[in-house]
Amino acid sequence: MRRKNFGKMPCPIARSLERVGEWWSMLVLRDALHGIARFDDFQKSLGIAPNMLARRLNALVEAGFLERRRYSLHPPRYEYRPTERGRDFRQVLIALSAFGNRHFAPEGASVMIVNAQTGAAAEPIMVDRATGRPICPPEYVFAPGPAAGERTRQRYAARPPDAVAPAEMARPATPQQRRAR
Amino acid sequence: MRRKNFGKMPCPIARSLERVGEWWSMLVLRDALHGIARFDDFQKSLGIAPNMLARRLNALVEAGFLERRRYSLHPPRYEYRPTERGRDFRQVLIALSAFGNRHFAPEGASVMIVNAQTGAAAEPIMVDRATGRPICPPEYVFAPGPAAGERTRQRYAARPPDAVAPAEMARPATPQQRRAR
Repeated sequence: MRRKNFGKMPCPIARSLERVGEWWSMLVLRDALHGIARFDDFQKSLGIAPNMLARRLNALVEAGFLERRRYSLHPPRYEYRPTERGRDFRQVLIALSAFGNRHFAPEGASVMIVNAQTGAAAEPIMVDRATGRPICPPEYVFAPGPAAGERTRQRYAARPPDAVAPAEMARPATPQQRRAR
Repeated sequence: MRRKNFGKMPCPIARSLERVGEWWSMLVLRDALHGIARFDDFQKSLGIAPNMLARRLNALVEAGFLERRRYSLHPPRYEYRPTERGRDFRQVLIALSAFGNRHFAPEGASVMIVNAQTGAAAEPIMVDRATGRPICPPEYVFAPGPAAGERTRQRYAARPPDAVAPAEMARPATPQQRRAR
């Protein structure tokens, strides 16, 4: 079943998802960023069917995340290395990995990010490069950008994004708040 | 086609993907974090088929990302609000959104993250909370955690993760390097 094309949406999240392709592609990229480069090594790591792996690798090459290089002439053999775009995707995988360890690793982390010098476990958080402040509401919010169309502007005008602070969202609304909604 | 169960893998990225469910769920969560709560509003925002939306909402409730609250008794009507886990997923969506704006918004950003006080565009980067340093190799690397099994340990022992610095990976290997591989 082909799903709706997210690439036509203005949302940068939707566009990223469209170009990455699907779930498997995230794990292929993860392995590529860990230094895996050859078809057989991806297959061994992922336990994925060969035809599916070939499709995912080709799609990731096409979308500019991996580049294909021949490493043997006879027989012809290729390896797949992350491009600059592929390496930049590391940020997304770090966020997913930190999230997974916080929520879905009751037995403790199997894989985590550490400081290579000290071995200390890192606690990855997203900050604004300019200010060094964590990117959280209400200090930081999603907003229409310069290329926003009418629909996007209206959406944000009608419903101030992230306007509700985490502490408030965590509590059930009071009767006064409920009446105000 | 049911894909392989990622939830049984030790990798925190795979587990997060398994629990989120699929591509649509990411956009449902995005909307929920923007304050959308009611079925009709999700549907209007996403242009998603009602049966698909109902499935995604139920799965996100079941996986603990959203909670369902009744807001009308007659007729019974429910709204969906992010749980603490759902709000924590914001980090992943911010990473995806920043990535999408860097790579797939040639016309400029339609949606971006801004400082609510100043209106300045944020540049989201992932840092280690303890040191404030960007999480990039070679300073920060993925490594086996305390709960790592034998296979995970072997994988990291055999192939030092992230051992290749970005600048080196960007260049084609020299003949000397190729011989060494």
